[in-house]
Amino acid sequence: MTTPLGSIDDVCINTLRTLSIDAVERANSGHPGLPMGAAPMAYVLWTRHMRYDPTNPEWSNRDRFVLSAGHGSALLYSLLHVTGYDVTFEDLQHFRQWGSKTPGHPERGVTPGVDVTTGPLGQGFGNAVGLAMAERWLAATFNRPDHALVDHYTYVIASDGDLMEGVCAEAASLAGDLRLGKLIVLYDANQITLSATTNVTFSEDVGARFAAYGWQVQEIDGMDVAAVDAALTAARADDAHPSLIVARTHIGFGSPNKVDSFHAHGEPLGKNEVMLTKRAYGWPEDSHFLVPEEAKREFAKVRANGERLEREWQSEMNSYRAAYPEIARDFDRALAAELPPKWDAKLPVFTPKDGDMATRDAGAKAIEVIAESVPNLVGGSADLDPSTRTMMKAKGDFQSALVLEGGQLPQTQGAAGGAWGYAGRNIHFGIREHAMTAILTGMAHHGGVIPYGATFLVFSDYMRPSIRLAALSDAHVIYVWTHDSLAVGEDGPTHQPVEQIASLRAMPNMTLIRPADANETIEAWRIALEHRNGPVGLVLTRQKLPILNRATLAPASGTARGAYVLTDASPGALPELILIATGSEVSLALSAHEQLGSEGIRSRVVSMPSWELFEAESNEYRDSVLPPTVSARVSVEAASPFGWERYVGLAGSIIGVNHFGASAPGPEVLRRYGFTVEHVIATARAVLARAGKGTS
Amino acid sequence: MTTPLGSIDDVCINTLRTLSIDAVERANSGHPGLPMGAAPMAYVLWTRHMRYDPTNPEWSNRDRFVLSAGHGSALLYSLLHVTGYDVTFEDLQHFRQWGSKTPGHPERGVTPGVDVTTGPLGQGFGNAVGLAMAERWLAATFNRPDHALVDHYTYVIASDGDLMEGVCAEAASLAGDLRLGKLIVLYDANQITLSATTNVTFSEDVGARFAAYGWQVQEIDGMDVAAVDAALTAARADDAHPSLIVARTHIGFGSPNKVDSFHAHGEPLGKNEVMLTKRAYGWPEDSHFLVPEEAKREFAKVRANGERLEREWQSEMNSYRAAYPEIARDFDRALAAELPPKWDAKLPVFTPKDGDMATRDAGAKAIEVIAESVPNLVGGSADLDPSTRTMMKAKGDFQSALVLEGGQLPQTQGAAGGAWGYAGRNIHFGIREHAMTAILTGMAHHGGVIPYGATFLVFSDYMRPSIRLAALSDAHVIYVWTHDSLAVGEDGPTHQPVEQIASLRAMPNMTLIRPADANETIEAWRIALEHRNGPVGLVLTRQKLPILNRATLAPASGTARGAYVLTDASPGALPELILIATGSEVSLALSAHEQLGSEGIRSRVVSMPSWELFEAESNEYRDSVLPPTVSARVSVEAASPFGWERYVGLAGSIIGVNHFGASAPGPEVLRRYGFTVEHVIATARAVLARAGKGTS
Repeated sequence: MTTPLGSIDDVCINTLRTLSIDAVERANSGHPGLPMGAAPMAYVLWTRHMRYDPTNPEWSNRDRFVLSAGHGSALLYSLLHVTGYDVTFEDLQHFRQWGSKTPGHPERGVTPGVDVTTGPLGQGFGNAVGLAMAERWLAATFNRPDHALVDHYTYVIASDGDLMEGVCAEAASLAGDLRLGKLIVLYDANQITLSATTNVTFSEDVGARFAAYGWQVQEIDGMDVAAVDAALTAARADDAHPSLIVARTHIGFGSPNKVDSFHAHGEPLGKNEVMLTKRAYGWPEDSHFLVPEEAKREFAKVRANGERLEREWQSEMNSYRAAYPEIARDFDRALAAELPPKWDAKLPVFTPKDGDMATRDAGAKAIEVIAESVPNLVGGSADLDPSTRTMMKAKGDFQSALVLEGGQLPQTQGAAGGAWGYAGRNIHFGIREHAMTAILTGMAHHGGVIPYGATFLVFSDYMRPSIRLAALSDAHVIYVWTHDSLAVGEDGPTHQPVEQIASLRAMPNMTLIRPADANETIEAWRIALEHRNGPVGLVLTRQKLPILNRATLAPASGTARGAYVLTDASPGALPELILIATGSEVSLALSAHEQLGSEGIRSRVVSMPSWELFEAESNEYRDSVLPPTVSARVSVEAASPFGWERYVGLAGSIIGVNHFGASAPGPEVLRRYGFTVEHVIATARAVLARAGKGTS
Repeated sequence: MTTPLGSIDDVCINTLRTLSIDAVERANSGHPGLPMGAAPMAYVLWTRHMRYDPTNPEWSNRDRFVLSAGHGSALLYSLLHVTGYDVTFEDLQHFRQWGSKTPGHPERGVTPGVDVTTGPLGQGFGNAVGLAMAERWLAATFNRPDHALVDHYTYVIASDGDLMEGVCAEAASLAGDLRLGKLIVLYDANQITLSATTNVTFSEDVGARFAAYGWQVQEIDGMDVAAVDAALTAARADDAHPSLIVARTHIGFGSPNKVDSFHAHGEPLGKNEVMLTKRAYGWPEDSHFLVPEEAKREFAKVRANGERLEREWQSEMNSYRAAYPEIARDFDRALAAELPPKWDAKLPVFTPKDGDMATRDAGAKAIEVIAESVPNLVGGSADLDPSTRTMMKAKGDFQSALVLEGGQLPQTQGAAGGAWGYAGRNIHFGIREHAMTAILTGMAHHGGVIPYGATFLVFSDYMRPSIRLAALSDAHVIYVWTHDSLAVGEDGPTHQPVEQIASLRAMPNMTLIRPADANETIEAWRIALEHRNGPVGLVLTRQKLPILNRATLAPASGTARGAYVLTDASPGALPELILIATGSEVSLALSAHEQLGSEGIRSRVVSMPSWELFEAESNEYRDSVLPPTVSARVSVEAASPFGWERYVGLAGSIIGVNHFGASAPGPEVLRRYGFTVEHVIATARAVLARAGKGTS
C-alpha cells in the first residue's frame, strides 16, 4: 500500500524518525542519529514481531524490549506514543524537561512501557540477559504441558558502544552458555561512535565473536524492511541459541549533511538540516510532531492486536488458575512481588551455645530456610559459592537442558542437587561480576523472581555501574558480599576491602547491612527480602565471630532500625562515652566496654549495622541512640574511616584504616592496624580526656 | 640430559612446582593448583624465550611478564628465586606473612621482578596491553634505524577466570585492533574455576573469540615442553597480531587426589597429599624447598645469559647516546620519570577578561601546552574526545601502521593531526573505560610515558577496579573526568554523577582535584604531572564557570595545598562563618559571601579543590584555613554530602544531593536541588542561628 507520503512502511518509519528529530530539536538536546538509522528495524520489530499491549504495560507475558543504546530514547518514546502507551503528544514535546515522562535516557518507573533504565553503555544488554533468564526460569517452573503462561521473547537494540563494553561481553558469553534462544539482539551497526568511525578502534569481527559465544548470527542490511523481518523470523525459529542480528544501518539517515557522521550522534540537527532531512523523506518540511492518519491507522492495528493477545492470555491464565489452583497462587504471588505468609517463621535464632560463627555461615543458614519458604528466590555467585556460602542446597542448577554430556547435564561440584534445567534455582554466573549484577537487575525488573548474587566485598567494585542502575531504578535485588574486611588476611591488599563500604554508603538508594553476629545476619536477610524499592547489600565475614548473648544484650531485631543500643553501663542515665561499631568490630567494642566499666567508665555500645536504615528513623529515635549531648564517641569499623564524622563528630575518634591492607594472617593484620581491645580503650580514654578539657 | 630426578626439564619444572607447594603448605594458605599445572610453560618461557636480567630488575628493555592469574603468586616467586632475583629462600618461607617480600598476590614495589600488581581477575591482562602499547610507542618514538633501544615482548599467563572478565575482553579487542604483535598470552586452560568446571559456565570457544579480535591463536598441550616452545616461537614470529596460546593444562598436576579438581585451586594440599605428590614427581618426599644442584646450574645459565643481554643493551645505549645526544637525553629523562626543565613555564594564566570558561576547556589549554613541553605525555579517552576536550592537537593518533585503508591509516574525525603510526600520542581506547584504566596502569608501570585517560565522571564507576590497583601500586596516571555534576542536565540521572566524588575520595592513595575555575585547573594539571606515587583524578565541568578575579582573591597556587582561604570579610580577624566549596560551587559561595557581607555577616570562603592534598598539610595550616573555634560552617558541592561532616562538623550544614539527579536543563536541575545563592544564604543564616543558640 502506498500513500502520498510513500509506502505505509515508509510513512510509519518516517513518522518515528521525524517525531524523534522534532523532540530533540525542541529540547535543543539529544541524540537524533540513532532513531533515524534504527527506525526501520524498530518499526518491523514493534509491528510484526513483538507482542505487547499498550493498554497494560505490565502484562507479565509481554515480550520485553530493551533499548540498550539508551541515548536513542527519542525513538523509544516515539514508539510508545504511536502504539498507544500513555506517552502523549505533550510528553514528546517535553522531552528532556523537568518532571517529564520523557527523560534524556529511558527510566523504568518514569515512563510506561520502559522495561529497564538504560544509557550507560552495555548495561541494557546485561539486563536483557537477566530478563531472558527470568523468563526461562518462570516458564520451567510454572508452565504445564497444556499451559504456557510464560513464553515470551526479549528483544534488544544495541549499538557499537554497547558491544565494546566488557559487561556486554560477559553477559553474551553467559547467554550463549545458557542457550537463551528467546533472546534476540538487533545490533545497530552504524559504525559511528561519539568521536570516530569504528574502524579506528573496533575492527574486530563482532559476528564471529558472538558465534564463538554460541549465538546464532545473521548479517543484514538494517535499512531493508524485508531483510529485518526475515532475520527476526529466523531468530525466533532458533530456540537453541540467542540471536545476534548484525544490522548495517546509517546513523542520521536522511540528513544530507550529517548521515554516516558522528555529528549526527549527540546533538540536534539544527533547524535548516531538519528541513532538508524532512524534504529527503518526502515529509512536509514545516510539520512538527506529525503523525499522519495512515500511520495512526496502522499503529492502531498493532494496539488492537496487542489487546487481543493480552485478553487471550488472561483467559488462559484463568483456566490455569482453575486447573492448578495452588501453583497459580504461587505464580500470582510471585508476580505481585508478595512474600508467602509466614515465610520467615522458621528463620533460626542462635545463642552463644551454638559456638562462634562466621556471618557468611549464618547467611547460609538464612538461605537454607528462605530457599524452602520463598520458592521464587533464585541466585548464585560469580564463581565463589564455596566461599560465599550462597548455594541453595538441593534446589538445582539453572542450566539449559540442551547442554548434555553423555545424556546428563554437566554437574557443578557443589551441593546444588544436580541439574534441573531452567527450573534450577542456583545460577552459575561464572567469573563475571559485572554481568551478574546487570543480570540481577534484569531479573528483578522482569518480575516473578527475587534474585541475589554473591561475591567478595572487594569485587563490588566490578559491579558498581550496574549497582547504580539497580539503585536508580528501584530494583529489588540482594547482593551478598563476604570476606568483608582486612580479616581476609593472607590474600593481601588486592583482596582486602577498605573503601568499599564507604563507597556503597555514598550511593543513593543503596541499603547496606553489616551484621554484628549470626542473629543480626538473620535479621539482615529478613530486611533484604522485605525491602522492595532498591538493592540491599549484605556485608558478611569470612572469619568466625562470637554470637552475642541476647540474654543480656538488646535483641537483634534492632537491626531493622539501622542502629540500636546494644548495652549501656548504666541504663536510664546518659553514658559518658559511646562506642559505635559495625559487623565484626561490635564484639571488640563490647570487650572494650566491659573493661572500661571495670575502670568505672560508663560507656554505651551501639551496634550500627546499617547507616541507611538508621537515617530513615525519626530524629527522636536517632537522638535516643546517639544523645547529642554525649560528644565523647568512638567508632570502630575495620574499613575506611571515610564518613564516620557524621556519627562521632569532630570531638570523637574514628578507628578505621585509611590505607590499603597487607598480606598476613587475618588476626595479625587486624592487630597491626589497631583493631584490638587495648587500642579501642586507649582511644576512648583520649576522647574522654579531650572532652574533659572541653568542658572544664 | 637426565639426572636421578628426571630430565633437566623435569627437574627444573618440578623444582618450581615443589617450591610453590612448600610455600603454600608452610603458609597454610594459598593456591598450589596453578603452579603445578602451569610450571612447564612458565619454565619454557623463562628459560628459552624471555629476556631479563635478574640482577637489574628495572632494565628498561627487559621483556615484561604479567601473571594475570595473580593467585598463582607462588609460581612467580619460585621463578624469581631460582633465576636469581632478590627473592631469597627465607622470602619463600615467609610467603603470605607480615612484612614479607612474598605477599598473597604479586605486588609491584614489594617484590623485585614483579612488573604489575595482580590478583583481581582480568586486570593483569589489561595491564599487559598497556605495557605492550608503551613499548610500541617508545620504540616508534625513540628507536632509530641502527638502534633498537626499545624492542621487547610482553608475556602473560592468564587463567579461565581472567578470560571471563569483561575488562579482558575489552583489552583484547583493542590489542587486536592495534595489532600488538609483541604481546603474547599463555592461556592456562585448566578448565577449573574456584567452584566448578568451566563447562558449567564457560563453554564458549575462546580461541575463535580471540581470532575474531584479530589475534593469532594456537591450541596446544600446555604440559608438553616442546609444544610450548614451538608455540612461543611461532607467536614471536608473528609481528602483526597479538598471540593467544590456548594451553591445555591440568590444575594440581601430580596430586593423585586433587588433579583436575577445584579442590586444588585455593587451599594447601595437606601434608599427606604433598608427600603423595612429591612421590608422583619422583621427588624426595621429605624434602622442603628443595632446589637440586642441577636445577641451580640450569637457572644460573639463564641468569648469566640475562646479564649478558643487559650488558649488550647498555653498550648499545651508549652508542645511541653518542649518536643522538638530544633524543637520548629525552629518552633517559622519560625513563627516569623526570619532567623537562621549565616544562610548565608556558602554562597560561587567565583573568576574568578571558570570559567564562568551562574547566574542561581550561584543561584543554593545559594539555595544549604540556603536549609541547612534555614529549612523553600520551593519552586519550574512551571515545569522548569531543566532549572531554582531551585531544592533543597535531600529535597524531596511536595506531598500527599495518592498518591501512587505500594506503592511508584510517582517520579519526578529531584534530589529532593524522595518523602517526605507533608514534601517535592520542590513544583511541574505544568505549572501553575499564580496559582503558588497566592499560593506563600498565603504561605507567612500563616507564617512559606519562599516560592519561578521559571519560565522564559518572563512568569512573566502570574504571573502579583498575583505579584501585593503580592506587595500590603507586601508578602515576592521570584521569580526566568531565561532566562532573548534576549540571550535565538533560542527559539525566544515568549521566549525572552524584556519589562518584565521595567514592573516589574514600579510596586510599587516590588524589582527586576539583578545580573552581580555569586557573585552578591549570594548577591541577601541574600537580598531576608532578605527583608521582599514585593516580590523580581531575574533576572538570562541562558548563562554563566565571574565572575568579585573582586581583582581589587569593592566588590559584593555593590549589596545591588542597584548600585555601579565597577571601575573608575581615582579614586578620576570625570570620563568623566559613563557606567551603569545590569546583563549580565556589563562585556560588563567593556570591553568597558578598551578599552576606552586605548584611553585615563576616564570612570566609574556602576553596577546597582536593581533600587529599589538604589532609597532607600540617595541622597548623589546616587550622589556619578552618579555625577550630569557628564552628559555623557550610559546605557546598553539587554532589553527595557523604563525608563532608569532616569539615563542617555536627554544628555545620552540608549543601549536597543525597539522591539521584533528573533530566532537565542543567541550570534548572541545580536550581531545583538548592544550588542557588539564596539557598546558600538561608542555610548560612540557619547555621549561624544554631551557633548563636549554642553559645548564648
